[in-house]
Amino acid sequence: MSLSEFALIDRYFRDCGAGRADVRLGVGDDAALLQCPAGATLVAAIDTLVAGVHFPPGSSPVSIGHRALAVNLSDLAAMGARPAWALLALTMPSADESWLGGFAAGFSALARAHSVCLVGGDTTSGPLCVSVQVLGHVPEGAAMLRSGGRPGDVLFVSGTTGDSAAGLALEQRRLMATGEADAYLRQRFLFPTPRIAFGERLRGLASACIDVSDGLLADATKLAQASGCGARIDYDAVPVSEALATMVSQAQARELALTGGEDYELCFTVAPGDVGKLRQTLPADQWGYRAIGVLREQGGVEVVAADATVMHFSHCGFDHFEH
Amino acid sequence: MSLSEFALIDRYFRDCGAGRADVRLGVGDDAALLQCPAGATLVAAIDTLVAGVHFPPGSSPVSIGHRALAVNLSDLAAMGARPAWALLALTMPSADESWLGGFAAGFSALARAHSVCLVGGDTTSGPLCVSVQVLGHVPEGAAMLRSGGRPGDVLFVSGTTGDSAAGLALEQRRLMATGEADAYLRQRFLFPTPRIAFGERLRGLASACIDVSDGLLADATKLAQASGCGARIDYDAVPVSEALATMVSQAQARELALTGGEDYELCFTVAPGDVGKLRQTLPADQWGYRAIGVLREQGGVEVVAADATVMHFSHCGFDHFEH
Repeated sequence: MSLSEFALIDRYFRDCGAGRADVRLGVGDDAALLQCPAGATLVAAIDTLVAGVHFPPGSSPVSIGHRALAVNLSDLAAMGARPAWALLALTMPSADESWLGGFAAGFSALARAHSVCLVGGDTTSGPLCVSVQVLGHVPEGAAMLRSGGRPGDVLFVSGTTGDSAAGLALEQRRLMATGEADAYLRQRFLFPTPRIAFGERLRGLASACIDVSDGLLADATKLAQASGCGARIDYDAVPVSEALATMVSQAQARELALTGGEDYELCFTVAPGDVGKLRQTLPADQWGYRAIGVLREQGGVEVVAADATVMHFSHCGFDHFEH
Repeated sequence: MSLSEFALIDRYFRDCGAGRADVRLGVGDDAALLQCPAGATLVAAIDTLVAGVHFPPGSSPVSIGHRALAVNLSDLAAMGARPAWALLALTMPSADESWLGGFAAGFSALARAHSVCLVGGDTTSGPLCVSVQVLGHVPEGAAMLRSGGRPGDVLFVSGTTGDSAAGLALEQRRLMATGEADAYLRQRFLFPTPRIAFGERLRGLASACIDVSDGLLADATKLAQASGCGARIDYDAVPVSEALATMVSQAQARELALTGGEDYELCFTVAPGDVGKLRQTLPADQWGYRAIGVLREQGGVEVVAADATVMHFSHCGFDHFEH
């Protein structure tokens, strides 16, 4: 392996992602030069994937490249922001060309799909670790925060959750599934879809928003706490995908949907007076979201069954230093 | 160790660095919201430090915190940019409170010195690895690039180089030095000074600029190549610190000064017609820089002794996959 660090960066990460007219200077100098649109607020997020923590050792590099960007795009989606530029800090044990080619392909395909340009990076040797930083923008004052919810606001989630945790279990052979469900759930783990378009359209409708990275229950709790509220989640309203439902019992599926991480759906609240507008502007059957509960003054988040039983779960989402 | 990831981030990284009025929303939501000044170009850099690669295992966490930010600030200095905001991706094997306290103290002290606010981050478990992303700005069209040099431009370097490599050797007990030189050189490795103020003042004077992270010879070569030129470096003009001179032979000192990395000085070029203005505006005895050679049409960078001998060096700066 004789490629130097600089040649590596050149070969795989020059022209990675979309071209953009607002990139004055991209990969290759000490820093990137970017033109932020007038009147916009800059939105910045950073997230790391570590081998053995966020993906099984030996995972497909295409998936790792996709996910490293997706988790950051999801943070921007939760703010209602439009992504524009990304920077990549890639640490890897050795400069394996086939791995790099796969990683760059996965990263670049998702970047192009969202018009994101890779404008800078740093490649170092060490245990596999990928940090991506994404920059985007939002009209001034229009960003959705976690803290904007009020008691009485209706709690929603996009798509279905728990699929990614099931997909990971399939990847690790801790679970078995049949053909279509197997493929669907693995895809949900390996190639999650950040809800960028939905996040942008929620601006002005949602009172608060968070992306579901640590598990629906954990992230809904964070939203409620940031908003100075508690919440009630209706156990039976928590959406479960057909694929997940075919694979495990209904109780297991709901538990996964509430506690499994890495789905990158959006959990958001809408004031009661705006719910009609939400349903009209963004038809639920087209955008795939569902009401799952309500914010309330009483602190804490309870998951309540139809017979008013409060359900308890042994864990509450991902927390890297506690499992 | 029962602190959760979220509590950790809260305790050590909330209110880290300087407070800034242009931070609309800092640590604690999905992403940060930042107000870029009108008419400014955004400048973004990312750099990673890996244990065992960029610092010896067991290094002081205060130094690691300082250096993780300093290497990025240095990238901004090389563009002539003013830093404003930072994001931190911290991967560590376990949540050690005393390590975190030291790291945050080192990071925060340097951040405050340059009015940088830590606006976001991600803490994950894994082998120790620190990625920092710094954002700043520069008046539109005013950034210094590596590519602006022309044949005939005079090549300069700020401060002295080689000190950091010597300091690392002292830390690793590969070298021994006496009291004052020992302390000075270790300090140069452990707490490098990014040349932010000097970089800002070089705008409009320097035709090209790069920071010295991989070694003076390697980085001067990158500047020359980006400018479509070669360069001649005068061996005897390469500045060497008193501390370094007391510790090794003159030949060893010059070799370290040319090939040792991580000094974070600025290497820049000035058109012949602007050299007088440079010396007048930024007196060399006050700002500590020195002419070390010249760009020329002939490709490649040669280090030439007083008797016109071309000097050769066995290695040329840091390149993580080649040593």
